[in-house]
Amino acid sequence: MTAQFTPQFASIDDANRAVASVLGSGEPVLLDVVQARTVIDVLAGDRPTLLHAGPPIAYGAAIPPMQGSCVGAVLFEGWAKDEAAARELLASGAVALVPCHSVGAVGPMSGIISPHMAVVVVENRVTGNRAYSTMNEGIGRVLRFGAFDAEVRDRLAWMRDVLGVALSAALHALDGGYPLAPLMARAITMGDEFHQRNIAASALFAQDMAPMLARAQLDLNTVFEVTDFLRRTDQFFLNLAMAASKAAADAAQAIGEGSVVTAMTRNGVDFGIRVAGLGDRWFTAPVNTPQGLFFTGYDQSQACPDVGDSAILETCGLGGMAMIAAPGVTRFVGAGGFDDALAISEEMAEIVVGHNPAMPIPTWNYQGTVVGVDVRKVVQTSITPVINTGIASLEPGVGQIGAGTVRAPLACFTQALKALAARYGLADDEPR
Amino acid sequence: MTAQFTPQFASIDDANRAVASVLGSGEPVLLDVVQARTVIDVLAGDRPTLLHAGPPIAYGAAIPPMQGSCVGAVLFEGWAKDEAAARELLASGAVALVPCHSVGAVGPMSGIISPHMAVVVVENRVTGNRAYSTMNEGIGRVLRFGAFDAEVRDRLAWMRDVLGVALSAALHALDGGYPLAPLMARAITMGDEFHQRNIAASALFAQDMAPMLARAQLDLNTVFEVTDFLRRTDQFFLNLAMAASKAAADAAQAIGEGSVVTAMTRNGVDFGIRVAGLGDRWFTAPVNTPQGLFFTGYDQSQACPDVGDSAILETCGLGGMAMIAAPGVTRFVGAGGFDDALAISEEMAEIVVGHNPAMPIPTWNYQGTVVGVDVRKVVQTSITPVINTGIASLEPGVGQIGAGTVRAPLACFTQALKALAARYGLADDEPR
Repeated sequence: MTAQFTPQFASIDDANRAVASVLGSGEPVLLDVVQARTVIDVLAGDRPTLLHAGPPIAYGAAIPPMQGSCVGAVLFEGWAKDEAAARELLASGAVALVPCHSVGAVGPMSGIISPHMAVVVVENRVTGNRAYSTMNEGIGRVLRFGAFDAEVRDRLAWMRDVLGVALSAALHALDGGYPLAPLMARAITMGDEFHQRNIAASALFAQDMAPMLARAQLDLNTVFEVTDFLRRTDQFFLNLAMAASKAAADAAQAIGEGSVVTAMTRNGVDFGIRVAGLGDRWFTAPVNTPQGLFFTGYDQSQACPDVGDSAILETCGLGGMAMIAAPGVTRFVGAGGFDDALAISEEMAEIVVGHNPAMPIPTWNYQGTVVGVDVRKVVQTSITPVINTGIASLEPGVGQIGAGTVRAPLACFTQALKALAARYGLADDEPR
Repeated sequence: MTAQFTPQFASIDDANRAVASVLGSGEPVLLDVVQARTVIDVLAGDRPTLLHAGPPIAYGAAIPPMQGSCVGAVLFEGWAKDEAAARELLASGAVALVPCHSVGAVGPMSGIISPHMAVVVVENRVTGNRAYSTMNEGIGRVLRFGAFDAEVRDRLAWMRDVLGVALSAALHALDGGYPLAPLMARAITMGDEFHQRNIAASALFAQDMAPMLARAQLDLNTVFEVTDFLRRTDQFFLNLAMAASKAAADAAQAIGEGSVVTAMTRNGVDFGIRVAGLGDRWFTAPVNTPQGLFFTGYDQSQACPDVGDSAILETCGLGGMAMIAAPGVTRFVGAGGFDDALAISEEMAEIVVGHNPAMPIPTWNYQGTVVGVDVRKVVQTSITPVINTGIASLEPGVGQIGAGTVRAPLACFTQALKALAARYGLADDEPR
């Protein structure tokens, strides 16, 4: 890990510009919706395996909502007959837990993906790599917040057998998939930051899918069910934006040099980051708990610690990093008014490589989104990335109880900086 | 006209607040799509009659694009067998021309509505009055820009027989129609100002219509055609926003007192306004020609003078009056960047009664849209309302060649102020 290497780039800054460019200029294309086991090898083996959000964690160490999600997935897969048996199986270690991020996938909140769940397939057309995510289940009692009753599992089956099959049929009629970048460039001019607000992107996506579904040889009731689900699911695009971001981040990671962050994620216990110049290694620190506004009847004491792969959005300069694009979300997450949103984005601009010209923000006088969090700048300024996030209840299955912001812990970045200094053969105190 | 009257309100300011409140707090509901002759009496009589945009005008005095639209409508109705016969019929005076505004209707650009065209029916649920508009035909060679070839007329027939019938079937399944105000309140947080930008509103509308169409007992091909048309027609919501605004403006006009403008519209020759305290009388002055940005191959010399009923949006505080809500449109109309948009909205705030709390604008720190243009303030400040508008080619049927802004001419307001002074029994120089 600390062995010397011969960089391809003349400087860390050069490497960082290359990484930031790949983070920003991917061409994510939605290719298909399929069962996870058909595209993720680790889910196709003999050993029962689940993917989860964040850096590696064992079942016994996970927060209650993630454990609840695991129970739901075990029952959904038919690996156990009831909750007690599922918990016993999980506690025994018989079910392998693998980070989504290790296999090209991302999942919101607990991020549990099991072999027979539907996932979207997004290809980065520039680099050819693919990324996967589950689809958004809507709000209320849903698996990603730890609920696992029959309604939750029936919805997952419907998403696989009806929603997924229908979208797959619609997408197959397209020559080469459905491009996500143009839609995202439009939606960021419409108040979306793609983490806590995807109203515009979800509507544009639903608007485009409707005629494609109508000519996909489906029956009218299926077209109704699918278009009605898309209509009701304001955050449907969140998971597509996550997969698009993962497809960009993995391509950036492959460059293999420099100090730019290529993954930020949380498992409810630890926050982990990866850095382009440091391979697959996770740099972790205890997660913070989001602060924000709570739905009626809930308060901060019930807030679950930070969890989910959705910070892949902030990794690519979206979400909280693009707060100024989404003044409508600023109040929702308790981050103040328009001037506060502006201040947050100006602050985030201090810790990145630059701006993404492909994503100009009208409310920022057409400056592009920030892109490429530089570990060096984070440590030098002590400014850590801000993440817009849903706040889950600690109690499994209650679901979302609010929305807020949370900071990545500084310790992840200080550790990564030391590792960079070692890799580049520099003293810790002069990492450039 | 100049006879004394006994006001119901204690002051003009009180009347203006009431009028502005009605302008802003209507509950427009999309009830149906029907043939114009079934809801607009003047189109159901024996004499061939067309509705047009703006204050009254004769065929011979109209600009070439409006004349082209009239030709198209005559051919569409089968009143003449070819263009020459249609022009002869129109020139003879055999076809009555009536302002849309006189019969509860509004039409974009030339604004021509004929008996067998489809119109949307929007009811103001608070006051019970109804307003009508054609549906948006999309871009390119379309009737509203003066094109009248077979493709244009076939599209109008399709809009009546397929699009209109399908939307009507979808709407009939709703108990009480489709509410437009909640959608508009969302869309104004998404960068729409409803005149030159309706991307968000059109997408939200299309997203909602898709499942309604799928369960409306239509065939799949019709569902495809209609959802595909909605997908392709970014400005589809423009005409719905116009009808919603007309439904508010007519209710405001019915109050019958005060100095607030209840209609602004243009026929290509004259700009006309109506004022709540001055009945159905038009105060007119020659139109200006929009200034803005032109599509490749066109320039200012080809720009058609200001035309269309779409300034009903500005009458209700939308469009150019809400520039700050739509920084994405500011560049499109050549009005500069974010700060310019802010300056325009701040300027417009000087000539209105107040802000509409039902339409908060995130980019304006959640201030509501301006509402209630006060004739007195316009004359005192010489600040005239700014209108965001498409720029038509002077040549009929070329269509839109750019987009820009245009000012209402001050003379309309000075005339109206004199009439107000007379009606309220005040000297011209002390109109309060």
